[in-house]
Amino acid sequence: MEFAKGHGTRNDFVILPDPDGALPLTAGSVAALCDRRGGIGADGLLRVVRCAKHPDATRYAADAEWFMDYWNADGSIAEMCGNGIRVFLRYLVTNGLADGPTVTIATRSGLRTGTVGETIAVQMGPPTLLGTTGATIGEAGYPGVAVDAGNPHLVCPVPAAELAALDLTRAPRLDPAVFPAGANVEFVTVLDEPVAGADRHVRMRVYERGAGETESCGSGAVAVAAVTLREAGRDAGTVAVDVPGGRLTATVTPDSLTLAGPAVIVATGTLR
Amino acid sequence: MEFAKGHGTRNDFVILPDPDGALPLTAGSVAALCDRRGGIGADGLLRVVRCAKHPDATRYAADAEWFMDYWNADGSIAEMCGNGIRVFLRYLVTNGLADGPTVTIATRSGLRTGTVGETIAVQMGPPTLLGTTGATIGEAGYPGVAVDAGNPHLVCPVPAAELAALDLTRAPRLDPAVFPAGANVEFVTVLDEPVAGADRHVRMRVYERGAGETESCGSGAVAVAAVTLREAGRDAGTVAVDVPGGRLTATVTPDSLTLAGPAVIVATGTLR
Repeated sequence: MEFAKGHGTRNDFVILPDPDGALPLTAGSVAALCDRRGGIGADGLLRVVRCAKHPDATRYAADAEWFMDYWNADGSIAEMCGNGIRVFLRYLVTNGLADGPTVTIATRSGLRTGTVGETIAVQMGPPTLLGTTGATIGEAGYPGVAVDAGNPHLVCPVPAAELAALDLTRAPRLDPAVFPAGANVEFVTVLDEPVAGADRHVRMRVYERGAGETESCGSGAVAVAAVTLREAGRDAGTVAVDVPGGRLTATVTPDSLTLAGPAVIVATGTLR
Repeated sequence: MEFAKGHGTRNDFVILPDPDGALPLTAGSVAALCDRRGGIGADGLLRVVRCAKHPDATRYAADAEWFMDYWNADGSIAEMCGNGIRVFLRYLVTNGLADGPTVTIATRSGLRTGTVGETIAVQMGPPTLLGTTGATIGEAGYPGVAVDAGNPHLVCPVPAAELAALDLTRAPRLDPAVFPAGANVEFVTVLDEPVAGADRHVRMRVYERGAGETESCGSGAVAVAAVTLREAGRDAGTVAVDVPGGRLTATVTPDSLTLAGPAVIVATGTLR
């Protein structure tokens, strides 16, 4: 079985080319492949399958050749992954499976179009800002804004001096009335250093539900950008979001959102 | 650059075939390869190089063709690795670089001979039992036996009911007069279920200095076997040691020690 491994801002993926949808993937086999010691190891798995050959994607076959069949490392299926889709697009173009720079693929969240260059920019669903609420770590409260970015988020602005010191070894406590299924929690600080092409520059740390603190979260960067612009009194603009694994750039207009960032194929190989 | 990935009882390794010693490995490049998100990811790296082509091994060239150039994931060099050497031997035989079943290789600890079959058995230096001392976790004390198995160990017998409940998220505290450079700490329980071919059957958990709790430690299994046999009043015998990552089997005679266990090559590939 052929595979590749790649990452986007250190969110990493096993890529399985399976144009005809012939691989009998199961939750167990996906978890074994993503196991970091017994398998290849990754945060998730991207199967590269033709839309016409996958039951979840045949309805997109007229508009897109390829379907991103995304699985989490635990073997569950997910709809979308903001870092995974860039790695998927990089793989397609690098291997001649799609002509760049503009490529439209199918995901379980629908069709998505990306522009593949040194970085890769992908149109995402625009986030929805909800009400104010907060998180608690130990005895400290952090007010924030709830955001629906396809999945639930809480964005909490914090002073620069506090960001690095936050203890994210345990989940921040949330209001279960606001987040009955939990949420990813982003802590964000506005930075003074300008970034070329960006209206705002922020740094974030994220606690992902079910995963703990991670080095990057694409939908979290989207949520952070939307909150940052609103706090600046703007409904459009570009925000450079530094995550521990690198830099993501979110561009918001009144009716669209584009997330851009790096994506690298690290290795290709054959499973024994 | 070609690579393979393999593991022994879930202690995993990047393998780099480099017969002529031409790869310019540095601490930085090894750490990048072993990085679990940005690279391939592993606990360590095994370079496969001819003895005649590596300055640390030319003196062994008359006795062994291959040198195991072992690096830790942080880019430091180590002398030996009880799980890594089995993976190294599996790689040699699987790829036709050595004829099995008996293969002698060079390591920084000297020549080592292994027998390659379904499992792989390797002659190790016999451990030396030192005095009694102890570890402390929270308020609880655990008496044990200090062992030199090439590196320092403390083996603490515990009742079966306690083993699973031990909190190894932090390092057990040791007597710095006994272990000025720290030690790996093994907690071990004798099990009642017999194992074919073994005189004793135990389960261990290990806290490795600098790494935290791990799923396997070859030298730790050796230390545990030696202490288990002595507590049974024997100076020779075979001990099946269940670690979280699988089963290792240590056979002790008055002047030798053999450690046997599985070794699997998971994938081969090319780095981009």
